[in-house]
Amino acid sequence: MGSPTRDTPQYAKRLTVDAFVQGILAKDRTILSRAITLVESQLPSDREVAEKLVDEILPHTGKSIRIGITGIPGVGKSTFIEAFGKHLTSMGKQLAVLAIDPSSQKTKGSILGDKTRMNDLSKDEKAFIRPTSAGDSLGGVANYTREAILLCEAAGFDLIIVETVGVGQSEAQVRNMVDFFLLLMLGGAGDELQGIKKGIMEMADGIMITKADGDNLKRATQAQSDFKHALHLFQPPESGWIPKVLISSAVELRGLHETWEMINEFRSFTSMNGYLQSQRDAQNKTWFHSTINQILRNEILNHKSILEKIEMMEQKINSGEIHPGAAARAVVNDFLKLISS
Amino acid sequence: MGSPTRDTPQYAKRLTVDAFVQGILAKDRTILSRAITLVESQLPSDREVAEKLVDEILPHTGKSIRIGITGIPGVGKSTFIEAFGKHLTSMGKQLAVLAIDPSSQKTKGSILGDKTRMNDLSKDEKAFIRPTSAGDSLGGVANYTREAILLCEAAGFDLIIVETVGVGQSEAQVRNMVDFFLLLMLGGAGDELQGIKKGIMEMADGIMITKADGDNLKRATQAQSDFKHALHLFQPPESGWIPKVLISSAVELRGLHETWEMINEFRSFTSMNGYLQSQRDAQNKTWFHSTINQILRNEILNHKSILEKIEMMEQKINSGEIHPGAAARAVVNDFLKLISS
Repeated sequence: MGSPTRDTPQYAKRLTVDAFVQGILAKDRTILSRAITLVESQLPSDREVAEKLVDEILPHTGKSIRIGITGIPGVGKSTFIEAFGKHLTSMGKQLAVLAIDPSSQKTKGSILGDKTRMNDLSKDEKAFIRPTSAGDSLGGVANYTREAILLCEAAGFDLIIVETVGVGQSEAQVRNMVDFFLLLMLGGAGDELQGIKKGIMEMADGIMITKADGDNLKRATQAQSDFKHALHLFQPPESGWIPKVLISSAVELRGLHETWEMINEFRSFTSMNGYLQSQRDAQNKTWFHSTINQILRNEILNHKSILEKIEMMEQKINSGEIHPGAAARAVVNDFLKLISS
Repeated sequence: MGSPTRDTPQYAKRLTVDAFVQGILAKDRTILSRAITLVESQLPSDREVAEKLVDEILPHTGKSIRIGITGIPGVGKSTFIEAFGKHLTSMGKQLAVLAIDPSSQKTKGSILGDKTRMNDLSKDEKAFIRPTSAGDSLGGVANYTREAILLCEAAGFDLIIVETVGVGQSEAQVRNMVDFFLLLMLGGAGDELQGIKKGIMEMADGIMITKADGDNLKRATQAQSDFKHALHLFQPPESGWIPKVLISSAVELRGLHETWEMINEFRSFTSMNGYLQSQRDAQNKTWFHSTINQILRNEILNHKSILEKIEMMEQKINSGEIHPGAAARAVVNDFLKLISS
């Protein structure tokens, strides 16, 4: 069952599924962290352990509120999450933050991994902060992070925040794994400057205007009113919940308790009308089917001869020698022959 | 190679690939129509012929302008397309209209198929109007319609219009198979009433305010100005082309030549900067990879035992017995065992 492959000491020896389960249920942060590394791994032997692990902890999941937070770089996501997180832990809540790190997609390394962001919150024993790789495949973020959410829930966290960067790639995936989606915006910048696609605004259950302090407070309040108006233009969301627009300041500690109240109100509202559970059921079904597709896709890309065929076909498509449909059929036929032989 | 399976007389005998090719290149409408029916078919034996056919006609494709047109029911899509189409044919242009018919997804029948819309245009010998099934799978619209576009191009049409309904499902797919995407909107209705998602506006190369006649003209002109303003809020499109907003009237024959000029201007602009070809190359690559995924998906759903397994797994996921990732792995494992046995 696989020999040690990691070069850092903590991975010198792989834990058993049972040791992972016990450690997670005992709220052992180190083991939780190692378990998240495990579910992020693409090694087939790791995937096997990861799937067993997630299956084992499944009965202990589902009790948290899952919150997605997005916004462009510079909007103050880390600052807001730290301030909000400190407010939560001061109320005795346990908070896990899964920060999706897009850098790893290209460099295979992490810009956030070594740099400690959210300094105060990361020292808080009621909080757990974990950068998580965006993965290198389309479904990557979704699948790793979904499993990481379950692991954190089994470790007893009351809130799970999934932080993503507002560049349009991963928002829809994160939206599809959380209960509540919060969009951070700057007041006074004009949304055209913020690079936020309208489609992302439509996903939001709440919009938070950050940096609402000092000279900026007036602009933030104006933006709050503007966004409230803009939201009226959108179709009412399926949840029946009317998205709220709040303002916050990490400096003046503004809007933090209001955020908590908004999320609680959302939970009560969607528990009552059944949307909370039906959304989770729908998310699970999407997860199931997209994972089938992703595993199939991985299986086909797992063969060197198929990869070569794909490359050759792409060239032939560009030169107009074959049309994409026939090229795809040829690739799949090769794959089916390969496994049946 | 398959015996006759259709119950209408025209399908009593299947044409050879060669007969299809000759007929299409000779601009035979009946054969073109049968060829489109062929590419829409999901029968494996039909698919085989369809792929050969598309491969054969490939050298004769690519010369048209491909135009996607969308808008909610009631915006006047058919009326606009008929008026615009008549204008084009009066200029000697040959026009094919592929109208995606969403109804067939649920009823397996077509609401549009028997009803003759675009009465005048359908009698015009320079025009070809063809409702096309939306298919029953996610990639359905995309793949059938892409092949239908190629068939129409081989038959010598100068413009191919792909008409879709603006309900948010198929727009992105159609956007990804055309050169120019035109969104029809009503003036004075307020975009909140039109159910148009902001994301669809962002896809548009042009917006057309329809029914700009009589008492409505003033509202349409106001809407034109509003939409021009709204488009400024969006990020500039990759093409470098600034979307235009026009007004049109089928009654007063307004805006028809302007539409043609806009499309021509777009073609010149994106030919010059290379975007026209690079967009088509990117579309082909997407088509190729999404077709690989779709064929794989079809292969797995092609086994009764797998379908039963999927259904069983969905129940277990809902009851919390298994998590979606593990369930997906189990399904794929069953599939791989099945073909290798």
